[in-house]
Amino acid sequence: MSADLPNDGEIKLVMAVVRPDKLSEVKRALADVGAPSLTVTNVSGRGSQPATKSQWRGEEYTVDLHQKVKVECVVADVPAEDVADAIADAARTGDPGDGKVFVLPVDDAVQVRTGKTGRDAV
Amino acid sequence: MSADLPNDGEIKLVMAVVRPDKLSEVKRALADVGAPSLTVTNVSGRGSQPATKSQWRGEEYTVDLHQKVKVECVVADVPAEDVADAIADAARTGDPGDGKVFVLPVDDAVQVRTGKTGRDAV
Amino acid sequence: MSADLPNDGEIKLVMAVVRPDKLSEVKRALADVGAPSLTVTNVSGRGSQPATKSQWRGEEYTVDLHQKVKVECVVADVPAEDVADAIADAARTGDPGDGKVFVLPVDDAVQVRTGKTGRDAV
Ligand SMILES: Nc1ncnc2c1ncn2[C@@H]1O[C@H](COP(=O)(O)OP(=O)(O)OP(=O)(O)O)[C@@H](O)[C@H]1O
Ligand SMILES: Nc1ncnc2c1ncn2[C@@H]1O[C@H](COP(=O)(O)OP(=O)(O)OP(=O)(O)O)[C@@H](O)[C@H]1O
Ligand SMILES: Nc1ncnc2c1ncn2[C@@H]1O[C@H](COP(=O)(O)OP(=O)(O)OP(=O)(O)O)[C@@H](O)[C@H]1O
Ligand SMILES: [Mg+2]
Ligand SMILES: [Mg+2]
Ligand SMILES: [Mg+2]
Repeated sequence: MSADLPNDGEIKLVMAVVRPDKLSEVKRALADVGAPSLTVTNVSGRGSQPATKSQWRGEEYTVDLHQKVKVECVVADVPAEDVADAIADAARTGDPGDGKVFVLPVDDAVQVRTGKTGRDAV
Repeated sequence: MSADLPNDGEIKLVMAVVRPDKLSEVKRALADVGAPSLTVTNVSGRGSQPATKSQWRGEEYTVDLHQKVKVECVVADVPAEDVADAIADAARTGDPGDGKVFVLPVDDAVQVRTGKTGRDAV
Repeated sequence: MSADLPNDGEIKLVMAVVRPDKLSEVKRALADVGAPSLTVTNVSGRGSQPATKSQWRGEEYTVDLHQKVKVECVVADVPAEDVADAIADAARTGDPGDGKVFVLPVDDAVQVRTGKTGRDAV
């Protein structure tokens, strides 16, 4: 029965935005939790903090977008919640700006090489 | 009751692809609508127009992918529809190529620093 | 009735991660299947293969993230399955690393220029 399968038999996309210097630890954590496959994108962003003002050569400027990396990990057999927790634990410093993890539903997957579909393709 | 909450108590990902020179206005619009957090990615793309032919030093070449920025904004307390409209209004020039906004369902969220989950984590 | 419409009347995001040198063929395949609009992102990633060790000037180093491109294609009138298959067929070499295609549900869309929403906006 699908309710007995991880993720109730569904496929999930775990999408995280974390500090670039936490990427190695996140990759290790994903391998440890049994979900080593991932896609990484360089992004920038801001959270709920107001923009910070800085000085450069006497000129004040505002930094409102910070460099981050997006990590995407599609899972079927490993619970998305475990993957999200593993990423969060690996990415945490305790300071503002540590990032977010989001879990999205996925209807279907195809492995290009084999043409396999569904949970077996993940 | 969840039906009384914005987005019927659910979390939504508002994903927009817009002109790069509209990013500042989009960021301002997001702050104004109460959804200041966002993730930005440099992308390229094409819409429904056929590829355009141009000349460079006498050589004709085809431009079929145009530089755009992707803006992603996950929301809980602000209606996704309001966020999508705010982005669209800020990004509009009236010319072809203004972009698209898509709204996707999100199952769950984690704020990395605090470990909070669900709507409170967004 | 919505069940008679492609994708049961719903909007879908087809998200693929493929080899960069297969992008042209993927674009052609998308045009051929009637879904020419797409967004492209440079990404890197790894699948299920363990990291590969290489040598450079006598030093061994480990490659664990490979350059890929992400192709995103939101569709309404063309079945997401046909789009996923078209991408997979165009991107296949038969060797490990060919990539994955994922299909995600989309709640709504806005075309920025016109303000149109729903399936007509895709
Ligand atoms: N709601 C959101 N939607 C889209 N991206 C987000 C959202 N919240 C955070 N991000 C992304 O995560 C990055 C880090 O966010 P950040 O950790 O500052 O969130 P926060 O809510 O301000 O938490 P903290 O108080 O711990 O800083 C941002 O730069 C942005 O790229
Ligand atoms: N269906 C789609 N799927 C994925 N990305 C899309 C889609 N439609 C548009 N985009 C992205 O948005 C960008 C801008 O699209 P564009 O505004 O040209 O859409 P359009 O439907 O052709 O509308 P218009 O007629 O106003 O130009 C594209 O370059 C692409 O990155
Ligand atoms: N489960 C996944 N989640 C997120 N991204 C993935 C996933 N699987 C693959 N990818 C992305 O697709 C790229 C190519 O993956 P790859 O084709 O190596 O998958 P695979 O499962 O190892 O299949 P193969 O055995 O054919 O190599 C990866 O570099 C990564 O960016
Ligand atoms: Mg913050
Ligand atoms: Mg267009
Ligand atoms: Mg592989």
